[in-house]
Amino acid sequence: MTQLDRIFQGESIKKFTITELNILAKEIRSFLISKVAEHGGHLASNLGVVELTIALHYVFDFPQDKVVWDVGHQSYTHKILSGRMKDFDTLRKFDGISGFPKTSESPYDSFNTGHASTSISAALGMAKARDLKKETNHIMAVIGDGSLGGGLAFEGINDVGNSKIKMLIILNDNKMSISENVGAMSKYLNSIRTSHSYFDLKEKIASSLLKSDHKKLFSFIQKIKDRLKKSMLTNTLFVDLGLTYFGPFDGHDIGQLIKTLKRIKDIDKGVIMHIRTIKGKGYAPAEDKPEKYHGVPAFKKLMEDEKRSPLDYSAVFGKTLIDIAKNNHNVVAITAAMPHGTGLNDFSKEFPKRFFDVGIAEAHATTTAAGMAMNSIIPVVSIYSSFMQRAYDSVLHDICLQNLHVVMCIDRAGIVGADGETHQGIFDISYMRSMPNISIFAPSDYQSLREMLFFAVENSKGPTVIRYPRGGEKQKIAFPHSFISGKAQVLKNGTDICIIACGDMVNTALEVEEILSERGISTTVIDIQSIVPLDEDTICNMAKNSKCTLTLENNVKQGGFGESVLEVLVRNKIHIPILIKAFEKGIIEQGSVDELLKKYRLDTNSVFEDAEKFYRGIINE
Amino acid sequence: MTQLDRIFQGESIKKFTITELNILAKEIRSFLISKVAEHGGHLASNLGVVELTIALHYVFDFPQDKVVWDVGHQSYTHKILSGRMKDFDTLRKFDGISGFPKTSESPYDSFNTGHASTSISAALGMAKARDLKKETNHIMAVIGDGSLGGGLAFEGINDVGNSKIKMLIILNDNKMSISENVGAMSKYLNSIRTSHSYFDLKEKIASSLLKSDHKKLFSFIQKIKDRLKKSMLTNTLFVDLGLTYFGPFDGHDIGQLIKTLKRIKDIDKGVIMHIRTIKGKGYAPAEDKPEKYHGVPAFKKLMEDEKRSPLDYSAVFGKTLIDIAKNNHNVVAITAAMPHGTGLNDFSKEFPKRFFDVGIAEAHATTTAAGMAMNSIIPVVSIYSSFMQRAYDSVLHDICLQNLHVVMCIDRAGIVGADGETHQGIFDISYMRSMPNISIFAPSDYQSLREMLFFAVENSKGPTVIRYPRGGEKQKIAFPHSFISGKAQVLKNGTDICIIACGDMVNTALEVEEILSERGISTTVIDIQSIVPLDEDTICNMAKNSKCTLTLENNVKQGGFGESVLEVLVRNKIHIPILIKAFEKGIIEQGSVDELLKKYRLDTNSVFEDAEKFYRGIINE
Repeated sequence: MTQLDRIFQGESIKKFTITELNILAKEIRSFLISKVAEHGGHLASNLGVVELTIALHYVFDFPQDKVVWDVGHQSYTHKILSGRMKDFDTLRKFDGISGFPKTSESPYDSFNTGHASTSISAALGMAKARDLKKETNHIMAVIGDGSLGGGLAFEGINDVGNSKIKMLIILNDNKMSISENVGAMSKYLNSIRTSHSYFDLKEKIASSLLKSDHKKLFSFIQKIKDRLKKSMLTNTLFVDLGLTYFGPFDGHDIGQLIKTLKRIKDIDKGVIMHIRTIKGKGYAPAEDKPEKYHGVPAFKKLMEDEKRSPLDYSAVFGKTLIDIAKNNHNVVAITAAMPHGTGLNDFSKEFPKRFFDVGIAEAHATTTAAGMAMNSIIPVVSIYSSFMQRAYDSVLHDICLQNLHVVMCIDRAGIVGADGETHQGIFDISYMRSMPNISIFAPSDYQSLREMLFFAVENSKGPTVIRYPRGGEKQKIAFPHSFISGKAQVLKNGTDICIIACGDMVNTALEVEEILSERGISTTVIDIQSIVPLDEDTICNMAKNSKCTLTLENNVKQGGFGESVLEVLVRNKIHIPILIKAFEKGIIEQGSVDELLKKYRLDTNSVFEDAEKFYRGIINE
Repeated sequence: MTQLDRIFQGESIKKFTITELNILAKEIRSFLISKVAEHGGHLASNLGVVELTIALHYVFDFPQDKVVWDVGHQSYTHKILSGRMKDFDTLRKFDGISGFPKTSESPYDSFNTGHASTSISAALGMAKARDLKKETNHIMAVIGDGSLGGGLAFEGINDVGNSKIKMLIILNDNKMSISENVGAMSKYLNSIRTSHSYFDLKEKIASSLLKSDHKKLFSFIQKIKDRLKKSMLTNTLFVDLGLTYFGPFDGHDIGQLIKTLKRIKDIDKGVIMHIRTIKGKGYAPAEDKPEKYHGVPAFKKLMEDEKRSPLDYSAVFGKTLIDIAKNNHNVVAITAAMPHGTGLNDFSKEFPKRFFDVGIAEAHATTTAAGMAMNSIIPVVSIYSSFMQRAYDSVLHDICLQNLHVVMCIDRAGIVGADGETHQGIFDISYMRSMPNISIFAPSDYQSLREMLFFAVENSKGPTVIRYPRGGEKQKIAFPHSFISGKAQVLKNGTDICIIACGDMVNTALEVEEILSERGISTTVIDIQSIVPLDEDTICNMAKNSKCTLTLENNVKQGGFGESVLEVLVRNKIHIPILIKAFEKGIIEQGSVDELLKKYRLDTNSVFEDAEKFYRGIINE
């Protein structure tokens, strides 16, 4: 029987010997590699924390004790050790277990995460609640060095240090966020990694003093020693911020981790335990290129396909920006820890001085872009839709209120799939549409993305957003268009239903039109292209000549694109029936994009059915 | 001729002697005190930086050199020294000069501020742009210790330290944000303030060594000395983060400030200069109670009225929460540096262990509230509408996606007046309405605020927002109602126009109804009370029985309340004309609330005129 079999059968890890735990770690690692190879998921981050997670489960009493996993994609071993090993074939699948902690999935998951840097604030809140209720359980946050660069993590530490509350922060330092880590904090952690400890020096002093009998100098040295001790003990940033610091420790040494955790777990204040781990530990390709194995869609396939780099919106964005930057020397690119994912890798090699990866710090990425724009540089910031939420006020207060020419490329707009509700990019239209001076464009194919990006950089004057989905174009929207802000494209001209769609939903609209026309329903299809400002003339003229209107978007309904079209129609006194097709509520779970679109009735067939039913209802009234 | 006269006449400060500069400082201080006493404005923060600002203008060449003032309310002396002394009688008034830096007002204002913690990121962006353009001017940020607790400031420092870029951060350490400062960073700064300097100790060691001839010990001490030197020089958090640190200096010693600035201004990397100042310096009542004199509406009057504490929404909130907390021991209150402004001062005294001021850290305030709620405590977070923007993703990702029972009281919702566009609370409906699981209520008088707060704490299960304006109720909405989520109140029942209003605009609706009925137009007035969820039955039934509908809100139009009513009507196939009265665009400048409502046609008379015109237009069609 393997050690993993014992876990599978529900045996408590607390009965294992250290030797058995080490074997278990190896077995878990193999299990993770094979499961992720088969089904996709986050690999490197999970391989890095196998020993830590084992040690935590050995020392603490979950679920009475609580651990908040920052970001949460490293929680696979935790899931294995809390009874979910049997579910790993459903990992990140529709109706399966999540790739992130989910309180709805298990009492062992104490707080849902997904975005970076939330764990310290969340755990502190739980700890304050515990103390108010006079309970005594242990509460901890596990946070990577990449997440530590996010402002919210600092705000959390600032409060932990101030509150003198019992709480454990485990800093999982692997010198990586998703790509190689950046920022002064990262360099600082590296300096701790390599510094000699205070205790080495103390030994030296003591032995020298034994040899000396010079009374006066003895007392003088004693003073220096005290001073030195004080200064060395307060020689870390975390201690300066009021935490008790332990480390750095080898994060792959289960025995030492257990010994240390047992020693420090009852300390009655904010403790930070700094461990060094290797991202991708135990799997050579992942150790070598952890950013490649950060989140992988079934990497057996990935390795086979390695040389084929399929085109997608991110890649088209990256290539186009290089073309633009060759001629316009004022253009720079900014990313928040996603050079690879946003398609900026080649740009960073071609223009290293004009490329800025600021780490996981979306607010800073946008506010510093505002500073650049104020000084006549044209920054192009590329951030995933769901992460851009963290920069809401920077976009509004620093860029839009000042009407600065910053180009914001919102990648992963719409449904992203397996990462689930924390990562879906379905709010950006709603939260950006009300910002002053903003323009928002949505390409329906690669060509329109290219044209929009050229327009945004060369012709736009204020804040300009281009939102596009994960993945690639579904078809070339075969219409000879050239992009102009505020100008929609009429792709099909009908008389019964007027479909107004944005972004990748234009493709769906075209498919729906085909089915409807087969059924004898004559349909207009408008590719809106420019969500803000809207092409009011085209919308009104085409809607007026139809019996009803249908809008289609990859965003929540509330405050979204459909409502903005509705407002235009009503303001222009066109009182025709309108059906807004969008996500009715902003919680969209994990699953494939197709499964989710189908469930929420935004796939071609559902839209067709709803459109036909809506139209027939009107005709028969 | 006074020194201030010389400034008034446009003489350059660079020609002044240090003695003259000191006299100038005194004169500026008197000028500020008298102007703020007369017209209102931020006093204490401005009195604290008189000498610093003089020194900056003496040493640097503005506007070629650039200074970004964090928050920006401390820029009055900067305005005086850059040609705007003559405009101080218009300070913070409609069409007058702003109480914050405004690039549109003067080339000496290099970046608009208003919200805290943006200055380092903005200045860094400007510095990176400067280097790309191969320019050589000086760029600096002036930031208070309170703002330094905001996560964005840390993200900025993390990048400055990493970028090895030439830039100056001046840390204006007055131990205060608006109220007394909190957080570990604040304690840390205090420890620097009081520590002996390295240089003192160096002297001691040197003199001792001179007395000694013990060769062996000499070399040993030398080693300790080097070690000590290294540890002392790296003994600050800022140095750990890659900055070159100087300080702390007396921020009221013009001579020393000038000498230091001259010495450090050409250092070719990120430099932090730490100065100690006294908030309210030179005005005894303000030195004594700086939070009271933070932003004062004409404090001559304030001092006379000191004992009369007029009731306003914030005070009603604070009192009601005390009543609730007396019976419900799970209730706690959280503020982000605004215990006074949000009405929580009394609560903090009554329940010190259940009150949490987390400093200027809105994201942390809400994420840590999520942690508390996850652990069965009921947190009531009170934050101003415009500052809540900084917590967008914490509210969405941590509270709403997890459907946690956190009560968010959004103070200063709507127009706030003299602070201008950065402080207007006119986006919250638009950005919160699309969040899943959320409820949003808006009281129209004190009684409904009380009932909503009771409901939110005792009956609500998920994220619950109550938004209310700055100031007090205009009238008691004389209707015997008791609040239920999702239930509107019909206050007037008419047949021509159906006005649906929220929050303080209900009062306006009632006034408009009076005028309209005098003109023979029969008007319905609905007090919506619950913005999310909407009372669809009442809206539809009342609208159906009218000839047109008008919505009224203290928020931007895009994605706001009016559009949500529109969506309900159209979805329910009620195709009647509707006029959405809201702010058409989210830039509302400074001025009195009355002036601004009038300009943007949301005062009683404008709404009446627009309603009548709209109605007549429909009747005559």
